[in-house]
Amino acid sequence: MLHVFGHTNPDTDAISAALVYASLLRRQGVEAQAFRLGHLNFETEFVLKELGVEAPPMLPELPAGTAVALVDHNESAQSVSNLAELSVKRVVDHHKLGDLTTANPPYLRFEPVGCTGTLLLKLHREANLDVPVQDAKLLLSAILSDTLHFRSPTTTQDDREAVEFLAPIAGIQDVEQYALAMFAAKSDLGDTPAETLFRMDYKVFPFGDPAKPQEWGLGVIETTNPAYVFGRQAELLAAMDTVKAEDGLSGVLLSVVDILNETNRTFILSATEEKVMQEAFGVRTQGQVADLGHRISRKKQIVPVLEKYFSPDA
Amino acid sequence: MLHVFGHTNPDTDAISAALVYASLLRRQGVEAQAFRLGHLNFETEFVLKELGVEAPPMLPELPAGTAVALVDHNESAQSVSNLAELSVKRVVDHHKLGDLTTANPPYLRFEPVGCTGTLLLKLHREANLDVPVQDAKLLLSAILSDTLHFRSPTTTQDDREAVEFLAPIAGIQDVEQYALAMFAAKSDLGDTPAETLFRMDYKVFPFGDPAKPQEWGLGVIETTNPAYVFGRQAELLAAMDTVKAEDGLSGVLLSVVDILNETNRTFILSATEEKVMQEAFGVRTQGQVADLGHRISRKKQIVPVLEKYFSPDA
Repeated sequence: MLHVFGHTNPDTDAISAALVYASLLRRQGVEAQAFRLGHLNFETEFVLKELGVEAPPMLPELPAGTAVALVDHNESAQSVSNLAELSVKRVVDHHKLGDLTTANPPYLRFEPVGCTGTLLLKLHREANLDVPVQDAKLLLSAILSDTLHFRSPTTTQDDREAVEFLAPIAGIQDVEQYALAMFAAKSDLGDTPAETLFRMDYKVFPFGDPAKPQEWGLGVIETTNPAYVFGRQAELLAAMDTVKAEDGLSGVLLSVVDILNETNRTFILSATEEKVMQEAFGVRTQGQVADLGHRISRKKQIVPVLEKYFSPDA
Repeated sequence: MLHVFGHTNPDTDAISAALVYASLLRRQGVEAQAFRLGHLNFETEFVLKELGVEAPPMLPELPAGTAVALVDHNESAQSVSNLAELSVKRVVDHHKLGDLTTANPPYLRFEPVGCTGTLLLKLHREANLDVPVQDAKLLLSAILSDTLHFRSPTTTQDDREAVEFLAPIAGIQDVEQYALAMFAAKSDLGDTPAETLFRMDYKVFPFGDPAKPQEWGLGVIETTNPAYVFGRQAELLAAMDTVKAEDGLSGVLLSVVDILNETNRTFILSATEEKVMQEAFGVRTQGQVADLGHRISRKKQIVPVLEKYFSPDA
C-alpha cells in the first residue's frame, strides 16, 4: 500500500493533493491512502468543513522500505523524519528539486506551476479520467490557496485554466467570493499560541555548502488582517527565538503577507537576520521589521535570493 | 537557448531523445537544440545512417548559468563535467534519481519505463501533437535498443505499446528484422581499440556513504557475437585496469550481454571485484569471468544489487 502525503505543517495544497492523488491512483489500480504530517491550518479546516471531507489521518511511523508518494514537496527537511529509509515511488511537486534520491527509477512529475493541484488536474486529463466533484473542490481550493487567487507571482496560465476548468465541476459560481471566504478563515487566528502561528506555514531550508549547510527556518502568515499579527509582534519574536534554539537554526524569518494589498513585511529576530535582509534584498529594516515590498512568494522571491546569497560560488 | 543532451558515452536512446525532445520543444515554442556528449556507438551510427539524420553536434563548453535539459540521465557522474554550475530546466528520464538538485522548480518527467523514447512519445500524445516520420524512426530505434527489442526485464507494457504505435508512422514493417540489423551493427566491433570498447557503454556509479562514496565503473557490451568479445578478453582486462587507474575507481566490471541468448558473463579485474560478485550476487567466478546468468539489465539487475550491498545501512 502506497502512503501518499504532503509536507510538514500542511497547507491546503499539501492536504488536497494527498487526498486527490491517492484517489486518482486507486482509480488507476494502485493501492494508495492519503496521510498528513501535521495539524490542519484554519484555511484547510474551513475547506474540508465546507466540502464535508474528512481530513486524512496522521502518518503513522513507517518501517524502513515502506513505499511512499510525496506530493507538494521533495526535500527531506520538509518531510517525514525517516524519509531516507523509505522507498519513494512517486513525487508530484512544483518546488525546486532538493536532496531527494531514489534507489530505483521513480515516477516524477514536476512543473513550475503555482500549485500541485494544477498538475493533478493534468494527470486526470492525460489519463482521460473525469474529476469527481469532491476532488474538483479540493483541487480548486488548493490552487486558490497556493496562488492567493492568482495574486502570487508563482501563478501561471496553467493555474488560471485549471480554475476555469474546475469551478463548474465543483459547482462554485463565485470563485472570488469563495477565495475571500478561505482567506478570511485563514486570517481568523483567534488566540492561537504564537509558536503555533509561527510554525503554521513554516519550512526549513538548507543554504550554502551542501556538505555543511546552514539551516534557516522561514515562516509565513498570509492574512487579510495584518494588523492582528502586528499586534502580537513581541510574542511572535519570542516564539521565533525559541524555535531558532529548538531547531538549531542559523536564522529565522517570519513574513507577514497582506493578501489583499500584496505586501510582505518580515519579522527579523537579531542582527544576523537584519544583515542578511539588508545585504541579500537591499531593503530597509526598522524595529525588527524588514519591508520586503511586493515580494509575497517565499518560493519564488525569498528562497532563491537567499540561496544565491549563501551560495559558496557567489 | 536550451541545450538538450543525453549522457556521456551516448547510446541510441541518449542521441534520439536529445534530437526528438529538442524538436518537440521547438514545436512548443521553446528555443532548443540537441547536442551529444561523446562519440556515436556503432548501433547509433547505423540508425542515423539508415534514417538519413545528422548526428547532433558535440556539446561545447557551456558558461555557468546556461539553461540545459537533460534526457536519459540525471546523475552528475554521467553528465557534462560542470553540470553543477548550469541551470537544469528540464529532465526526461527513466533512471533512478541521483544527485541532481535545481535552484528553481524544474520540469521533470520520470517514469520507470524501458526507454526515454517511450516518455517522449507520451509527451507528444499529451500535447496532441503528431510525431513526424523521422522522429518516429528515432524513438522506435531508441526503444528497440534500450529494451533489446523487449528482451530486457526493464521492458514495460508502455514500451510495447509505443513500438506498436510508432512502427506504422516510421514505415517499418518488420520490426524484428530492423532490430536484428541494429544489433548486428552494434556487434560489428572490427578492430575497435579495447579501451574504446570498454568505454562505449560505460557509466560510473557512486556507491555507499553519499558523503564519501566509492565509485565503480560499469561497462556493458551488448552483442549478438559474444565469441568475438571473449576472443579479446586479455586486451579488455588490460583496458579495464587502465581505466580503473585513470578514473580513480574502486572497482570496474565489464558485462558481456549475449542479446539473443539473454545471458550475461562479466569480466572481473581483481580480487576486489571477485569478492563483490560472489557476495553481492552469490555467483560463481572462473578465470576472471563471473556468470551472472540472465541478469542482462545493468539498471535493473546489477546497479540496485550493488547499491544495496554497499549501503551503509546494509
